[in-house]
Amino acid sequence: MKISKKRLAHIVFESDDRASRTFDLVLLVLIFASVIVAILDSVAHLRADYGALFYQLELLFTFLFTLEYLLRVWLTSRTMKYVSSFYGIVDLLAILPVYLSFLVANVQLLTVVRSLRLLRVIRILKLGRYLAEADFIRRSLKASMAKIQIFLFTVLTVVLIMGTMMYLVEGPESGFTSIPKGMYWAIVTMTTVGFGDITPVTTLGQFMASLIMLLGYAIIAVPTGIVSSEMAKMKSADHHASTRTCTHCGKDGLDPSDHFCRECGNSLD
Amino acid sequence: MKISKKRLAHIVFESDDRASRTFDLVLLVLIFASVIVAILDSVAHLRADYGALFYQLELLFTFLFTLEYLLRVWLTSRTMKYVSSFYGIVDLLAILPVYLSFLVANVQLLTVVRSLRLLRVIRILKLGRYLAEADFIRRSLKASMAKIQIFLFTVLTVVLIMGTMMYLVEGPESGFTSIPKGMYWAIVTMTTVGFGDITPVTTLGQFMASLIMLLGYAIIAVPTGIVSSEMAKMKSADHHASTRTCTHCGKDGLDPSDHFCRECGNSLD
Amino acid sequence: MKISKKRLAHIVFESDDRASRTFDLVLLVLIFASVIVAILDSVAHLRADYGALFYQLELLFTFLFTLEYLLRVWLTSRTMKYVSSFYGIVDLLAILPVYLSFLVANVQLLTVVRSLRLLRVIRILKLGRYLAEADFIRRSLKASMAKIQIFLFTVLTVVLIMGTMMYLVEGPESGFTSIPKGMYWAIVTMTTVGFGDITPVTTLGQFMASLIMLLGYAIIAVPTGIVSSEMAKMKSADHHASTRTCTHCGKDGLDPSDHFCRECGNSLD
Amino acid sequence: MKISKKRLAHIVFESDDRASRTFDLVLLVLIFASVIVAILDSVAHLRADYGALFYQLELLFTFLFTLEYLLRVWLTSRTMKYVSSFYGIVDLLAILPVYLSFLVANVQLLTVVRSLRLLRVIRILKLGRYLAEADFIRRSLKASMAKIQIFLFTVLTVVLIMGTMMYLVEGPESGFTSIPKGMYWAIVTMTTVGFGDITPVTTLGQFMASLIMLLGYAIIAVPTGIVSSEMAKMKSADHHASTRTCTHCGKDGLDPSDHFCRECGNSLD
Repeated sequence: MKISKKRLAHIVFESDDRASRTFDLVLLVLIFASVIVAILDSVAHLRADYGALFYQLELLFTFLFTLEYLLRVWLTSRTMKYVSSFYGIVDLLAILPVYLSFLVANVQLLTVVRSLRLLRVIRILKLGRYLAEADFIRRSLKASMAKIQIFLFTVLTVVLIMGTMMYLVEGPESGFTSIPKGMYWAIVTMTTVGFGDITPVTTLGQFMASLIMLLGYAIIAVPTGIVSSEMAKMKSADHHASTRTCTHCGKDGLDPSDHFCRECGNSLD
Repeated sequence: MKISKKRLAHIVFESDDRASRTFDLVLLVLIFASVIVAILDSVAHLRADYGALFYQLELLFTFLFTLEYLLRVWLTSRTMKYVSSFYGIVDLLAILPVYLSFLVANVQLLTVVRSLRLLRVIRILKLGRYLAEADFIRRSLKASMAKIQIFLFTVLTVVLIMGTMMYLVEGPESGFTSIPKGMYWAIVTMTTVGFGDITPVTTLGQFMASLIMLLGYAIIAVPTGIVSSEMAKMKSADHHASTRTCTHCGKDGLDPSDHFCRECGNSLD
Repeated sequence: MKISKKRLAHIVFESDDRASRTFDLVLLVLIFASVIVAILDSVAHLRADYGALFYQLELLFTFLFTLEYLLRVWLTSRTMKYVSSFYGIVDLLAILPVYLSFLVANVQLLTVVRSLRLLRVIRILKLGRYLAEADFIRRSLKASMAKIQIFLFTVLTVVLIMGTMMYLVEGPESGFTSIPKGMYWAIVTMTTVGFGDITPVTTLGQFMASLIMLLGYAIIAVPTGIVSSEMAKMKSADHHASTRTCTHCGKDGLDPSDHFCRECGNSLD
Repeated sequence: MKISKKRLAHIVFESDDRASRTFDLVLLVLIFASVIVAILDSVAHLRADYGALFYQLELLFTFLFTLEYLLRVWLTSRTMKYVSSFYGIVDLLAILPVYLSFLVANVQLLTVVRSLRLLRVIRILKLGRYLAEADFIRRSLKASMAKIQIFLFTVLTVVLIMGTMMYLVEGPESGFTSIPKGMYWAIVTMTTVGFGDITPVTTLGQFMASLIMLLGYAIIAVPTGIVSSEMAKMKSADHHASTRTCTHCGKDGLDPSDHFCRECGNSLD
């Protein structure tokens, strides 16, 4: 069976027929398998038993991903654009470290980069039915970005001031050994995570901690409100956006399902 | 007193007169009682004192639920459909384990399944006044599902990458003994639960933990925004539902400002 | 200076001139002072030093609140209705325990009831500018109540099932000594509180904990969405509610600031 | 190069050309640098090594900020208004403590005040593109303020009552040594922070803790709903701002469906 380069490019880059969907599915399985092997490889007693198997699987995944990368480079009409794009770099990062590890034995770098492979899943999902939904989230976050930046800056200012004050009030005995430590505690507290590895013990410290907790509890409403109202506005815009116009009287905003103009009674069909 | 099979079916399956409501209420009490007995039976010092009583009550509940199950099988006109339906399986699961435990002594299986009995409450509530409200929540969650899946996938990607990095930065001394452990910690932290059983101790680790906490604190806004805007849209759709109806073709939901029916072109003025 | 009973009733029950506002303010200060004394009295080293003073202040507050209670009973035209109303009972509860403590020395009852005095503040605030705002919150919560009940029932079902499973998976060694303990842990986890007094230690337990955390993190969006959309709908209803109608063509929903009907051009002034 | 006083004032106070933006940027860098030095100075092992350098940098920053302060006082046309304004006081606070520390050696005061320097960043950001966004957040918070105050008062009442009851139920053995401690725990729990430094150990205490956790989890929806609906309303108000304008009287914001101007009665068709 011989297939043209154009057909192959379609299979690799698109996702609208059986062959291209099968290619995507196989790739998806390979990515998840390689990530799961990386995860299992980090568990001491599993590595002790199956370390050699994990290493061989890793070499196999790297070989297959290398094949896929070369295929993409060969098939794409704008090679340089692909190589320097976000996905191109992620694809390269997914294979490069293994080759580097033959030269330099930096196990840590390898481990981080292997977990980055999960980012490759995004490309495949992008081609699927999630495109519009992800775009909706991306657009609302983008529209909310300036407000969220202000919010985060406010949070960080409060974190700095409260962290400094807790460092002064509580001191090293309670674990507040420096301002960075105090800021770490303030973030743990304001975000309502509350590990409990550092906690105030003095009455004044506990009072100040109560203030910052109530503040953190109340202002979570702000980013939520920002994103909610942005999304509600978008939904509303999508909802009202009908550009169908009556050819007789010019009335617009008609529903696609209308048969007659609601303004002048003109037949629309 | 003799009652027809049809009347009995009405009592068992419907919920619109005194007899059928009494049946539902008795069943509700039995379900809650059986669940509470299962809960109390797990408390060591209570089982020591009342274990025998709990066992006898369990047998009684099972007997009554068996009667009810057989009644439903006999009364329903489409027996196979009921038996293979979600509620049919839940009803069977509520009694089967006890009979199985006579054959095989698997106490664990029995305990889990007894807590599943609470699911039976849903059927009874479904017939009540909560139907429309539950349907509203279900519809908004369904409409938000694709967006929430994307959100969860993003969270899991962040969890994997942060979990891997914390495993490398903190290492086994702080409790980050493997990538799965690091991912467990990342979920505990991002969801703002913050048990504190594993906490970063290095400066770099605490800095990275601060980033993931702020991220988790900020992105909680996303699912909230999704569900809020979806619910607001639904409410708005219900709200705008005009009752104006065309006198010619009967098309309803016309805007008060329309001059002609959008379905048949009939003049509305 | 002699004032009529009617004037006195006005001062005590209303809040619209200088004298009645002064009465409210003095009462507010007394309530907060009595609550603060109760709080301070619970701190061991303060009671050791100032216990006698606190007791005398408590007697003074009780005397003044008794005076106020008798005044209200005497002034109100419908005595029985006041005495049996929510506020009448709270007012009586604010003084009764001290008299009871002369007969029976139940210190615990006294302590709880003294903190209930704070509820009396609500009556005073009700008369102020917060009335409309509090009513807005109350109405939106009432409108959301059925949905929130369903939500809480769902949460409790998940809590029961997860609590049971964690009890079976983790067992007494990790602190999951019974199903109620497992349910307590599940609530601590799902609400993202995360004390860390009980934490899973097995891999399966940590995996199940991750699931319940992600679930708790995601479904917080549901009550938030319910209340948000309810409030948005109310706001929107307030916003659009203009009943001004053109006397010429009958067009309604006109702005109070309009000078001419936007439908027929008729002068509205 | 000689520049006029007016030009200098423009550079210092405005932010709309290259020179004034450069001035803002340099100031921004200096503020962040001074805050970072203050943070690093609090880390014991860094102070041991670089204490002298940090002190000299602090003197340099103070000198430069003093110059800037004098410049602002000299350039502004309404000196007293600037000196007594919020930003004037923050600017003075940023330099005063160092001079005071020559007289009295209060290191603590100095440390807190140095962290307050971050507040100066707000002024610079105010002039930038974040103005409108920050104003949006400020307006929605202001509009929600009365509702949020009621919410916080309700939370504090619950905190007092639950804190008192936990103090009575759990007692000093579990760490609930006084009502203030109980209230601190109730805040830690209701805000879902959950440090775990104090946790209930009795069955009744854990049951009451479960109630307060579910309550805290559910009512987070209230401030979120308040802010969300307020923001949605504002957005909607902005959104509906129609640009249709009456050609006769110039009244704008007319609905596209209006036939006559609502201000002057002019026919719009």
